[in-house]
Parts: sequence; structure tokens; C-alpha cells
Amino acid sequence: MADSIPDRMHALVLHEYREEIADAIDSLKVEQRPVPTLKRGQVLVRIDAAPCNPSDLLLLQGKYGALKTLPAVPGWEGAGTVVASGGGPLAWWLKDKQVACGQQEDRDGTWAEYVVANAAECIPLKRKLRMEQAASLIINPLTAIGLLETARRGGHRAAVHTAGASQLGRMLVAMAAELNYPIINVVRREAQVELLNSLGAAHVLNSSDDDFVDQLQAVSARLQATAAFEAVGGEMTGKVFNVLPEGSSVYVYGALSEEACDNIDPIELIFRQKTVNGFYLGTWLQERGSLGVLRAASRAQKMLIDGRIETKVQRTVSLEEAVDGLRQYVDHMTDGKLLIMPHTG
Amino acid sequence: MADSIPDRMHALVLHEYREEIADAIDSLKVEQRPVPTLKRGQVLVRIDAAPCNPSDLLLLQGKYGALKTLPAVPGWEGAGTVVASGGGPLAWWLKDKQVACGQQEDRDGTWAEYVVANAAECIPLKRKLRMEQAASLIINPLTAIGLLETARRGGHRAAVHTAGASQLGRMLVAMAAELNYPIINVVRREAQVELLNSLGAAHVLNSSDDDFVDQLQAVSARLQATAAFEAVGGEMTGKVFNVLPEGSSVYVYGALSEEACDNIDPIELIFRQKTVNGFYLGTWLQERGSLGVLRAASRAQKMLIDGRIETKVQRTVSLEEAVDGLRQYVDHMTDGKLLIMPHTG
Repeated sequence: MADSIPDRMHALVLHEYREEIADAIDSLKVEQRPVPTLKRGQVLVRIDAAPCNPSDLLLLQGKYGALKTLPAVPGWEGAGTVVASGGGPLAWWLKDKQVACGQQEDRDGTWAEYVVANAAECIPLKRKLRMEQAASLIINPLTAIGLLETARRGGHRAAVHTAGASQLGRMLVAMAAELNYPIINVVRREAQVELLNSLGAAHVLNSSDDDFVDQLQAVSARLQATAAFEAVGGEMTGKVFNVLPEGSSVYVYGALSEEACDNIDPIELIFRQKTVNGFYLGTWLQERGSLGVLRAASRAQKMLIDGRIETKVQRTVSLEEAVDGLRQYVDHMTDGKLLIMPHTG
Repeated sequence: MADSIPDRMHALVLHEYREEIADAIDSLKVEQRPVPTLKRGQVLVRIDAAPCNPSDLLLLQGKYGALKTLPAVPGWEGAGTVVASGGGPLAWWLKDKQVACGQQEDRDGTWAEYVVANAAECIPLKRKLRMEQAASLIINPLTAIGLLETARRGGHRAAVHTAGASQLGRMLVAMAAELNYPIINVVRREAQVELLNSLGAAHVLNSSDDDFVDQLQAVSARLQATAAFEAVGGEMTGKVFNVLPEGSSVYVYGALSEEACDNIDPIELIFRQKTVNGFYLGTWLQERGSLGVLRAASRAQKMLIDGRIETKVQRTVSLEEAVDGLRQYVDHMTDGKLLIMPHTG
């Protein structure tokens, strides 16, 4: 199969980090690049589909924690077929298998026809998992699993999630329900309250309600919700932090508002043993180790296959259509993922 | 000696929590109260001197973590003579001894002629320690020791302190110097830079400098200062948090600006393993245990006796003068403590 791999490939290439997301998207160009060569322990993955996640937008803006040396190909995750091995037993074993792969290093990412992945970080796909779902196997499902595990291991009896209606939020509802773990879902609009109720969420609060903070305080006290998964930033971080019970930990894992975390009451920090922490999937994956990640991914795949969780896709695009697709996507992120399919078009 | 204790005493009594500090001070009245009775394990301390600390002002405003049921006597610490024992070997042993005592429970505090203290929480005073210094033995010196210990046990190689010119800040300079532990002292005015330099502080930054943040970033990276003791709140919390090296912990122990902690960059939380925590002396004392507290207090007393550290007193007042004294004190807190001496005047 290796002889069917071309020398050159198409890729979306970022030339400059730009703070305004529209500018950042404009600095992406489809270019020809050499197909990368492999080291021992690495595999070459022919990408079938790769999503755009909020963390990809952060990279384009130069705000992601691990920046790439430019010019570089973005794309933190994707799925495809292993078409070449750089050597080593695991890489050899993966040959011809379908995998999902995440890309956390200073290397070209998944928005390309081919990507290099560490064999130890590839997740072999179950046969019944559709490629569209496999493309987003890692970031959202494993973050949901990681957040839940972090809260439970921390001894928190329930948790608040501030992006309740997001793709990840909907997965969290399903995963937490199976664990009988109470989640207080915070959304911004009445339609999202109805959506989450229809998914079986037991506790849904609308942050636009005048008495949202009082509601949150009451239900978090009742459920002893001493963890929060915070993805909004700005005033939301403080609103949640300040009313949670004594001993609470707020885990910030995103910043959808693009604002700094504000309004954190020092009295709550000092006297009520509360902390503000970050949650970073990369760190969690490392701490869990390869086998632990495979187990978590296996659970996620089963749930994706039988539809208990789902990644909604709003549009699939070729590499050539991707810049245009990204421009539209950033204004309608809650409608579903944008999926880049490099071998179409 | 017990028969010389009167049935009634004078005390400063708070009737209402009020958010504005001026209003809160106005709600203090000197009143006659019964001298409290003792339970086993308690002692009665005839207060010679009790300071007003920022944490006392928080109590008056109803913002302290552990509120008292009103009406109540404020005053979180003080020093005096044990004049009666409620029974038990330790309480008996303390009889006639001079002690410092802290008062963290929902009981009347030290701004009175007499206070009840748990014998196990009394700190016997060394003979050479002047009462004026003994009155403030616990809150500032032990907070300084507790912060330093917390940072060192957390593996932080250096620390930032954002209230460098405060009484506690000056103690911290002396204590850290003896441990060869680098402290980056942040002050607000050029005169304070000179003051700290004259005390031998090696690293002093002026937060009013245009390039303060850049300076802080450079020196904290060089010294690997991954801890911060934050007593200001508002924008300062985020300014410090955002530029400290990876893995940093900000310990908020005060809020001199009376503002919430703002501008905490979620990217720093997520990708750089930083956390925002509180430091509360009461918790630290509990974790350290009686013997540990006595050891720390012994070290503080030695340093106070030979002048390596000092609590500056700007004014001593009787109970009758205290309301007037507090009104003036709140506008000139950096000039030194206000000391209430209930048996004068």
C-alpha cells in the first residue's frame, strides 16, 4: 500500500496568527506540501475527515497553549486510515487500520490529506463507527469523560456545566445519566432549556433568567454540586464560583466568550476553600496513560455507535471549501461541527 | 486572683453588619456586658491590647467568612493575662500567664476588657515580648509564616507578594531572607520601593510602572516564582496570575482593594496548569496542630523580641476612643496598626 502514497499532498496552511478570528481564517491557504516522512513509532494517516473545534480557532488566533511554528497545518484531531508505518511493533500492527488521531505537538495537523501520528496515540476504530463520528472521537467525548472523572475523583457529588447546550454538553448529559451523576446544565436561551429537557437532563438553568444566580445557589446547595465545568469565561466564571458550596472547584476548560474570567470573590477563595483550576485534555490524556485512554475511547465509541451520544455535523467541506466554510461556521457554532474531508472535491 | 474579676465589663459591641466601612464603624457602641463564664478547657483573658486588622474590618462589613451572631464583640486577636481557668490541666497551667489569643469562633472577641479563649489555642508569651507586639502576634506573623511554608511545601522556588509594603509584607521580607527564599515584593509607590530596599528586600517592583507586568514576567521567570501571595484583588489578581510561569499557584489571602479578582486568563488556567486558591490562616493553624502553631509562634516571638520583625503601631486608644480611632485608621492603614487597650482611659 505504501507505494500508492504520493510525494505531495494538499493541506490548509496557516501563515500568521491573528487575534481576530475572521483575519485568522483569511490567512489560511490551500497549498501543496510534501507528504511527511515517518520516524520509528509513527504512522501516516490518510485523513478522511477532520473537524474544526473551538480549540482549532484558538490556535488560529495564536491563543492556544501549544502553538505551532508557522507556517503549519492546523487541525487537532481527525480520522482516517493508516497507510504507512515508520517501524516498531505498534505502528506495524496499525497498518491498514482505521484510526482516530489527535495532534498535540508542534507538527502539522489534520487539516490535510495526510498527517503523521504517534502510533501509541492512535485509537483504532470499531467497524460500526461512522467516519463522520470518528473524526470527532477524541476532543469532545474524551473531554466529557475526563471532566466527569475529574469531578468524581475529586469527591464532588454533582457538577455544574456552563455550556450545557454545546455538543460536549449534550454528551455530558448522556454520560452523566449513565453514571447517575447529577449535572446542573446552564444554557443561555429558553429553546436550549427545552432541548436539554428533551435529552433527559434533570437540571437545566437559563443564565438569562433574572434570578439565575439564586436558582444556581439553591440547586447546587441541594445537590452538593461542588464542581463546575466552565467553558464561558467573563462574568460567568465568577457568577458560578461565588455561589457554589464550600470546598468547590471550578474547572475552566474553555472560554467561548473570549473574555477573561472575572468577578471571583476573594472571600469565597479565602474562607470557603474554593479553587479555580484549568482542565486541559492533553494533560488528562497523559495522566491516564495509553491503556486508560483506549478504555475511555472504547466507551465513547460504543456510545457513538448506538447513538447515545452524537456529534452533530452542520456541513462537510473539501480543503478548497474550508476557508469559506470556516467563515460561516464561526457565526453558527452551536449548529454543529464543520467537517473537513480532504479527499473530496 | 479570680475574686478580683468583676461581674461586668466594658466592650465594643457591633449591632449590625454594614457594607460601607464608615457605617459599620458607626454601628459600634461601648457597652456594659456580663464577664463571660467559662467551660472546661477555656480560660478568661484580661485583655491588655488588641489590634484592628483588615480582617476585623471585613467582619464589621459582614464580609468575613465566619460571621458572629449579633450583637457581638469584634476583635480577632489580642494579648493579656489569664485570670481564670474553666478547668482542665492546660487551662489551669495557663493561670496568671501572659498569652496571645486568637478568636475564630462565634463568640465575643478581643475588643473588650475580658475575652474567653480556648486554652489549647492560647500562646504563652516570652517575658521579653512587649505587650504592644504581643497583641498582633498571631494574625500577621503567623500568616507570613504560613504563606512561606505553603509556598515551600508546594515546591515553589520563589514567590510574589502583592502587598509588599504592608506590615505583613515587611515581616515576609525578613522571614524569607532568613530562609534564603526569594520574594518578589510588589508595591504601589516609589517611596515604598525605597522603604523595602532599606529593609534589604532584593526584588521590589512598583505596580505603577508602565512596564510593571513585563518586569514581573521577567523576574518571576528568572527566579521560577511559581507562587503568589495576593492581598489586593481586582485587576491585580489577573495581572499577576497571567504572567507567572507554568504551574503557578496564586494564593489569595486578602482583598485590600475591596474588589473581586478579575482578568484571569482562561488560557493560562487551561494550558499552563495554574490555579487560583485561597489562603486562610484559620485553616492553616488547624492543619498545623497545636504544637506546630506553638513552634511557629515561638519563632515569631523571637523575631519580634530582637526586632527582626515588628508591628508598627500608629495609635493606641481606649475603648471609648476606639470608634473615633477606627474612623481615622481606615484612611491611613499603611501607617501602622490601631491598638485598643481596654483597661486604659
